[in-house]
Amino acid sequence: MKIGFLAIGDEILQGKIQDANGPWLARFLRPWNLALQACATAGDGEEQIRAALDHLYGGCDLVVCSGGLGPTPDDVTKQALGNYFGKLIHPSPEARACAEAHYRRMGRELPEGHGYGYLPEGFAPLSNPSGFAPGLHFTSGGKSLLAAPGVPKEFRDMLEAHFPRFAETQGLPVVKLLNFRTQGVAEEKIFGTLCPGLWEALSRFGQVSSLPHPLSVDVGIALRGTREQVERAESEARALVSASPLAPHVWHVGHESLEEVIVTKAAARVLKIAFAESCTGGLCSHRITNVPGSSQVFLGGVVSYDNAVKTSFLGVREETLRTHGAVSEACAREMARGLRERTGADIAVSLTGIAGPGGGSAEKPVGTLWVGVATVDGDQARIFTFKGDRESLKTRFSQAGLFLLHDSLRSPSVT
Amino acid sequence: MKIGFLAIGDEILQGKIQDANGPWLARFLRPWNLALQACATAGDGEEQIRAALDHLYGGCDLVVCSGGLGPTPDDVTKQALGNYFGKLIHPSPEARACAEAHYRRMGRELPEGHGYGYLPEGFAPLSNPSGFAPGLHFTSGGKSLLAAPGVPKEFRDMLEAHFPRFAETQGLPVVKLLNFRTQGVAEEKIFGTLCPGLWEALSRFGQVSSLPHPLSVDVGIALRGTREQVERAESEARALVSASPLAPHVWHVGHESLEEVIVTKAAARVLKIAFAESCTGGLCSHRITNVPGSSQVFLGGVVSYDNAVKTSFLGVREETLRTHGAVSEACAREMARGLRERTGADIAVSLTGIAGPGGGSAEKPVGTLWVGVATVDGDQARIFTFKGDRESLKTRFSQAGLFLLHDSLRSPSVT
Repeated sequence: MKIGFLAIGDEILQGKIQDANGPWLARFLRPWNLALQACATAGDGEEQIRAALDHLYGGCDLVVCSGGLGPTPDDVTKQALGNYFGKLIHPSPEARACAEAHYRRMGRELPEGHGYGYLPEGFAPLSNPSGFAPGLHFTSGGKSLLAAPGVPKEFRDMLEAHFPRFAETQGLPVVKLLNFRTQGVAEEKIFGTLCPGLWEALSRFGQVSSLPHPLSVDVGIALRGTREQVERAESEARALVSASPLAPHVWHVGHESLEEVIVTKAAARVLKIAFAESCTGGLCSHRITNVPGSSQVFLGGVVSYDNAVKTSFLGVREETLRTHGAVSEACAREMARGLRERTGADIAVSLTGIAGPGGGSAEKPVGTLWVGVATVDGDQARIFTFKGDRESLKTRFSQAGLFLLHDSLRSPSVT
Repeated sequence: MKIGFLAIGDEILQGKIQDANGPWLARFLRPWNLALQACATAGDGEEQIRAALDHLYGGCDLVVCSGGLGPTPDDVTKQALGNYFGKLIHPSPEARACAEAHYRRMGRELPEGHGYGYLPEGFAPLSNPSGFAPGLHFTSGGKSLLAAPGVPKEFRDMLEAHFPRFAETQGLPVVKLLNFRTQGVAEEKIFGTLCPGLWEALSRFGQVSSLPHPLSVDVGIALRGTREQVERAESEARALVSASPLAPHVWHVGHESLEEVIVTKAAARVLKIAFAESCTGGLCSHRITNVPGSSQVFLGGVVSYDNAVKTSFLGVREETLRTHGAVSEACAREMARGLRERTGADIAVSLTGIAGPGGGSAEKPVGTLWVGVATVDGDQARIFTFKGDRESLKTRFSQAGLFLLHDSLRSPSVT
């Protein structure tokens, strides 16, 4: 099944908002081993929508549209789709009931005189789990169209609610993306020198993919077949990777983020964590606290941007700063040690480095990072050197800090 | 001039990466008062690229392509474009010189046997300020095509380097987007009840737009004409807004972010700032430290997620926590006051609230935020109530904290 995606909205073409639904849909379709064949963006005008549909329907069996289903005059999607397929808009008791249910859920009544109760002939409404406007479904001549609202949450919830049933009616097999998240080895080395035969070996289970992230590479396999076939393939693929030189680099199997994995593992071991952040300016703490339930494991910490904060809040010695500078092994260790003592955390992680654009030197260039880790076993520090602009360096720095934290969560004697 | 954008790459259709060039291009074109007419995404295949070009060239005078210009076998853009226009690929001394210069800049030599020295007949190379692959420019029958690499930095640098000259050859006028950034009044109220005639009054200078952000609304006017006309219109439009009830809500004229404006204003007044963050978990500090040069004004602070950190690092009294709870006026004020005393900051801002999904109550629901501000004048606190999920609440919370910080930067007696 070939799928096209059409985003409708002047505000996207004007750069006022960025379409998030196309990228989300591409990822959402993966479990069915479906990929987008083509994407298009059209303005809020019938001619523009018509031209984009002409383009997408040429090579696709299903077109998913987002946007233009609301009640305001610039929402022309329903009218444009009706005209495109030569279907008159008429009152639809089914659409009206659907919209009434959406309003009831919010304790409101469907206002009179707007168009939610009308549909092009032959179109079916799709219930909206998180908004007012019903979606649309139309099938004709073996080709289908699904239209959902442009608000990302409504688009996602509607696709999640209705697409699996649609896929079933199309006889699609079960598909699962088995995802090995790795660290510490560059993408080209994994399949080049570390595990030269792995890609081919994994390919017999399904399509293999490799996706780089900051300091991490995802190796994925799309497993497909009956539920039993998929389960058997998963266990064989996991065994294959476990027995390969890639095994020590795998930090998670699944799609969860590093911060989610850290919170889950720390909670399971009833460990408390804290950060002393200089160059990352609070980014590690921000990332961890994005995870619901992080208050179980995260105590907080200090953003020690200024050296005076390092001495007064963390107990870094003036002499250390004078002798070694703030970006040094000694400072990173004292920061972590001081934070652990003062917060009572099981694991305290410190980060001190140079995010640029200024502040670098020949000896300590922009991109230099020291990460300190203090546990009951004592403290240690590691140096990293990265390249990039200020924001990407902050991201890489925080990623390096979180990976060292994650490593120490695996250590047996962390408390 | 109608412009279409074509993103080329399987990895976009597969959802592995998100196209950032289309949204950037839409914003980049604004100063010329140009909007994208349509966007499309095509996979790395000649047929897919051809179908998308058929679609885009129908309604556009210029198509900008991104991606597929690299040296690997899946980079087929140059070949596909040549075939589309019926132009044979041939050696181009100009393209070769361009690529050689790119390699020389990186201290490397152009490797033999790859295709950077070849172009379709009639195409011109575009120099790449930040990468190896030259871009392409082709004009025929009054229509033009620009092709740039997909790597966002290379795409942007190439467009910034070459588009202004192209616009000049097309006789486009000077255009400037005058942008009033406002806070404290909802989008629908600005032009509804606060300034009912403002939209119309501003419209005589150019196209007016309104763009909501978290806790902020941008009111923009696209001024166009000769340089003198644009300057006169700008000063008249500024005078009109200054004399309107919107004036006290304008926190900046321009496109800079709130954190950039704060760093600039604090640096100009030689003020030091610090944050005590609970519910935002470091996000305010992260945002401020994204600004190059923020170390001039930002001392750091404390991420006081756990109550024990509030007492030990900020001096919040146990009794305050027992009597009022952590999310309270008293706690917010003690956090800000304690942080200011302990860091020596001129302005200390504290945030304590409930980001959810858990932790809410009838009295203090999820979305409740107290912001405290301590200056030489003493301390005060303000309560806010927002709606949203955890991440959007953290964003709104940090925005509210930064706005109160910005307000106190305007106060005459802050030191």
